[in-house]
Amino acid sequence: MALKFELLKTHKNARRGRIYLPHGVVETPTFMPVGTNANVKLMTPENLEEIGAQIILANAFHLYLKPGMEVLRHHNGIHDFMNWEKPILTDSGGFQVFSLRKGRKITKEGVLIKSPLDGSMRMITPELSMEIQNSIGSDIVMAFDYCAEPGISHQDAVVALELTTLWAERSLKSIRNMSDQSIFGIVQGAFYKDLRERSAKEITSMDFDGFAIGGLSVGEGYDITLEMTEFTVPLLPENKPRYFMGAGAPRLIVDLVNLGVDIFDSVLPTRVARHGQALTWKGKMNVRAAKYKFDKSPIDDECTCYTCRNYSRSYIRHLFDRGEVLGQMLLTIHNLHFMMDLSKKIRESIDGGYFEKLRGEVLKYYD
Amino acid sequence: MALKFELLKTHKNARRGRIYLPHGVVETPTFMPVGTNANVKLMTPENLEEIGAQIILANAFHLYLKPGMEVLRHHNGIHDFMNWEKPILTDSGGFQVFSLRKGRKITKEGVLIKSPLDGSMRMITPELSMEIQNSIGSDIVMAFDYCAEPGISHQDAVVALELTTLWAERSLKSIRNMSDQSIFGIVQGAFYKDLRERSAKEITSMDFDGFAIGGLSVGEGYDITLEMTEFTVPLLPENKPRYFMGAGAPRLIVDLVNLGVDIFDSVLPTRVARHGQALTWKGKMNVRAAKYKFDKSPIDDECTCYTCRNYSRSYIRHLFDRGEVLGQMLLTIHNLHFMMDLSKKIRESIDGGYFEKLRGEVLKYYD
Repeated sequence: MALKFELLKTHKNARRGRIYLPHGVVETPTFMPVGTNANVKLMTPENLEEIGAQIILANAFHLYLKPGMEVLRHHNGIHDFMNWEKPILTDSGGFQVFSLRKGRKITKEGVLIKSPLDGSMRMITPELSMEIQNSIGSDIVMAFDYCAEPGISHQDAVVALELTTLWAERSLKSIRNMSDQSIFGIVQGAFYKDLRERSAKEITSMDFDGFAIGGLSVGEGYDITLEMTEFTVPLLPENKPRYFMGAGAPRLIVDLVNLGVDIFDSVLPTRVARHGQALTWKGKMNVRAAKYKFDKSPIDDECTCYTCRNYSRSYIRHLFDRGEVLGQMLLTIHNLHFMMDLSKKIRESIDGGYFEKLRGEVLKYYD
Repeated sequence: MALKFELLKTHKNARRGRIYLPHGVVETPTFMPVGTNANVKLMTPENLEEIGAQIILANAFHLYLKPGMEVLRHHNGIHDFMNWEKPILTDSGGFQVFSLRKGRKITKEGVLIKSPLDGSMRMITPELSMEIQNSIGSDIVMAFDYCAEPGISHQDAVVALELTTLWAERSLKSIRNMSDQSIFGIVQGAFYKDLRERSAKEITSMDFDGFAIGGLSVGEGYDITLEMTEFTVPLLPENKPRYFMGAGAPRLIVDLVNLGVDIFDSVLPTRVARHGQALTWKGKMNVRAAKYKFDKSPIDDECTCYTCRNYSRSYIRHLFDRGEVLGQMLLTIHNLHFMMDLSKKIRESIDGGYFEKLRGEVLKYYD
C-alpha cells in the first residue's frame, strides 16, 4: 500500500500533517528513533510504545550484513523479527556506504565496498538496496543515493548528483516491480544551490511518495545547513511528506520545522543518553555531575516519562558512577521521551498557531 | 519489625515456609536475585516484579563505598533510592572484605582493607557493617562474619570461627540497639565438621532471626559442599529460616532444598545471561550458537517469560552477534524468570509431595 499524506494545517512554513502507512498512522512533524540493528539501543518495543514513538528507522546496510536477507525473509520481515508492530522506515544504505571510504569503488552500476564486519567485498546497487529493503518489509523505503562529503568540489558534486538521479530512477523502478512499499526520493547537490535546484527538479519529476533532503548536517556549519534547507524545501511538492535525514538536536528540529520539514531522525538523543547527557526543557544536563549526588528531584520537573516518574538524579548519577547499564537504559527512555514530547508540542503549537513561541522557548535553552 | 517465619509443610528434609517481612511476604524455598549496586543488572523493578522476584539481595560493602551512607540516609534507605518496594536482604560485607586479600589486616576489632574504588584504607567492624545495613534499611541484615578461603588449615579455621562468633555477638548487639531490622547469624567452620559443629552451636545460641550457612560453594568440590551442608543443617533450629549463601546453579538449589535449606542467592543466572547462556527446563543453552540463526522458536518452549512470549532464538542470537545490549537484557529477564519459576515449582512440589520427582527432572538436565 502506498502511503497517503494529509496536510492538515500550516503555520507560515511549518506544516502539520498525517501519514497513513500499512503499520499505522504517523502524525507529523515527528522525530524517528533510530534502530540500526533491528533494535533501538537499550529499548524494548514496549518502551518505545510508552514514550510515544510512531515510527522508527532501521538501516538496510547493517541488516544486509547481519542478520542478512535470508533471516529477514524467514521472519517475513523486521516487524516480526524485532516484535515492533508500528511503521518502519529504512534508509537505503547510501549514507553508510559513503562513510566507508577505504577501498570503495564507485561506478554507474553501484558501489563496491569492503564489509566492516568481515572485510569481504560487496557490490551495492540500487536494485540490491531495494531487495534488502523489501526483505526488511519497511513501510517506507529510501532510494539509493550518493551522499557527498563536506568539502566536495562542484565538479565532483555534479557526478554525485547525476548518479543520485540515475540510481533514484532505478530504485523507483525496482521497488515498484517488487512490492507496494512506499518510497522516498532523496535530493542531493551538496552545498551548491544550482545543484540542489537541479537535483530537486530531477528527483521530484519522478513519482516518489515523499522526498528527503540528504547530504546535510554532515559536518558543515549550522548556517549552511539552514540556508541549503531553506533553499531546497520550496522546490519540493507540498502534497508529499518531507524528511530531513539526520536531525536530532532540538534546535535543529524546530528550525527545520520552521522551514517546512515534517520528519527527522538521528542517533543523537540515544547516543548522548549512553554518555550521561539528558535532554530537558531547560537544556542539556550532565547527570554524572557531582552536584546531583544528593539531588532527589527527577531529571526534568516537567517530564512525565517512566524515568522521571520513578527515579531521582541522585540515583541515576549513582548508576552512571558505578557503570551500571540501567542508568543508560533510564536515560535513553528519558531522552527519547523528550524527543517525542518535543514532536507532540510542535504539532500542538502548529495546530494552535503558536509554533513560533514554542520555537523561541527551545532556542532559549538549546544553542 | 522482626520477621515471622511459618514452616508450612515438610517433605522429608525439604521445607515449605513463609517469611513475613516489613516490605512483604516471602514464600520459601526461594532464590534471591542479586542487586549489588542498588540495581539488579539490566533489570528495572518492574521487570523484577514481572518475573516474580519476592526479595532481592544488596551488598552492604559496595553501597558503603558508593553511593555511601549519607546518600542512602538522605533517601531514607535503598527502597526509595532504587524504586523497589519489596523485601531486601543485605549481606554484611564479610564476603567482599575477605575477597580483597591484598594489604588486608585482620584484628579482633575488625578488618582493615583497601578500597577497590579509590585505594583508601577502610576499617570495617561489625558495628560499622550494622550501621551501613541500617542506612540501607534492609528487611534482613546479615551478621559480619569471617569467610575463610578454601584450603585454610584447621588452626587458621579456628581463628576464623572464633572471630565469626565474636563478631556475631557484636553484630547482634549493635543492630538491636539501632533498629528493629531482622538479623541472620552465619555459621562458618570451613570444611571441618568439628568446627562447623562448634560454629553452629555458638551462633545458634544467640537470638538471631534466621541462620545462614556461609563459606561454602567458594571453590571446594561439589561433594564437599553437600556433605558440609548435610552435616550443618540439622544443627540449625527448625523454627527459623535457613539461607545458603551463594547458590545459583539449578542442581545445587534442588540439592540444597533436599537438605532443608530455604533461601539462596547468586549472581550466576544474571552473569551467564550477559554472556549468552540461557537456563532452560532442558538444561543450559548457548544462544550465540550458529544453529539458532533461523530458529523461530522461543528460548524455552515451556517458559512464559516476556522474552519467550515475544522473541525468537534467531532474534536474540542476532542481538548478541551484533553486541546489542538488548540481547543481554532479554536473556537476564529469561534467566531470572527461570530461577523464580524453579523456586515456585519447588514450592509446589513440596506442597504436592512430589519434590523428589522435580529434583530428578532438574538433575537430569543439570549436572
